[in-house]
Amino acid sequence: MEYNIRLAQPTDSQHIMRMIRELAEYEKITHFIKLTEEELHRDGFGDVPWFRCLVAELPENERSETGVPFAGYTLFANSYSSWTGRTLHLEDLYVSPQFRGRGLGRRLMRRVAQEGLRSGCSQIHLTVLKWNLPAINLYRSLGAENLTEDPGYQVMSFNGEALRSMGLEEEPQESVTGEDPDL
Amino acid sequence: MEYNIRLAQPTDSQHIMRMIRELAEYEKITHFIKLTEEELHRDGFGDVPWFRCLVAELPENERSETGVPFAGYTLFANSYSSWTGRTLHLEDLYVSPQFRGRGLGRRLMRRVAQEGLRSGCSQIHLTVLKWNLPAINLYRSLGAENLTEDPGYQVMSFNGEALRSMGLEEEPQESVTGEDPDL
Repeated sequence: MEYNIRLAQPTDSQHIMRMIRELAEYEKITHFIKLTEEELHRDGFGDVPWFRCLVAELPENERSETGVPFAGYTLFANSYSSWTGRTLHLEDLYVSPQFRGRGLGRRLMRRVAQEGLRSGCSQIHLTVLKWNLPAINLYRSLGAENLTEDPGYQVMSFNGEALRSMGLEEEPQESVTGEDPDL
Repeated sequence: MEYNIRLAQPTDSQHIMRMIRELAEYEKITHFIKLTEEELHRDGFGDVPWFRCLVAELPENERSETGVPFAGYTLFANSYSSWTGRTLHLEDLYVSPQFRGRGLGRRLMRRVAQEGLRSGCSQIHLTVLKWNLPAINLYRSLGAENLTEDPGYQVMSFNGEALRSMGLEEEPQESVTGEDPDL
């Protein structure tokens, strides 16, 4: 069967959002999903896109059988490393359960790598839950290293309230100078 | 003493590169630094910047005393979360040893938070080496959570050769269809 992997279009937002929710169910974190379809649409397809997305399109006959147009997707964003420069951050790689075992995960990863190389990137970074062995094994089989095992990277995050209170914290008056008098 | 925190300018590249090397010495990974000053300049200050950088500028009298213009810097990039949308990836936060203990790390973090909020971000993500307790303690005191401890995020990376061989791997001929005939 033939799956066409292509860059997502604005009209794909609804189906990408559906797959994001499916992935969140698999990761048991649906309660963390705050993103809306409107935001996804605005951020992915505006003048300065915040991410890129590839979709694995089903062949015509499977589309009518299953009622969905895509078997999976991957979402990634430009990032930067002060060691090696241009980097891709891989946010999601997902294949719906009924389409697994057909090599689609590998094909999507290959296409992400091609997008990265074309943009002059020299690495792809990602985070993965430690119990998600199918994903970890896929990444390892493609040559990824686990930087949490060695040299010991921890992922930290400032969320919602932490970010807001850090941004709103008062700047001590006496240290305010120069070009940004109000900060 | 008054330190002015401002967005980096193209002419700051040389000094940012020097601080990137200082930070790498602290992290004991200078052998991983492949980035050149020219690449940093091109990627940070071109038409589509790959990162943003804030510098903590020394007051005039300290600049002539120390021979360097900056006490520290922070480098960050736009990123994206499929749970919460617009995100900042914090790549580096660095204060040179002789300027520590003056709250500059906190001030730089506050400014990163302000940049993030202004861009509509709802989180800041970062990775940190597990033995770098001064940094971990600073982030924790500002409200960051450790996502490697819970829910168990691992950082994985495809570097150089792994990325190239993944990108160059042959696409099986029979599965090539549609809009990207040559992929």
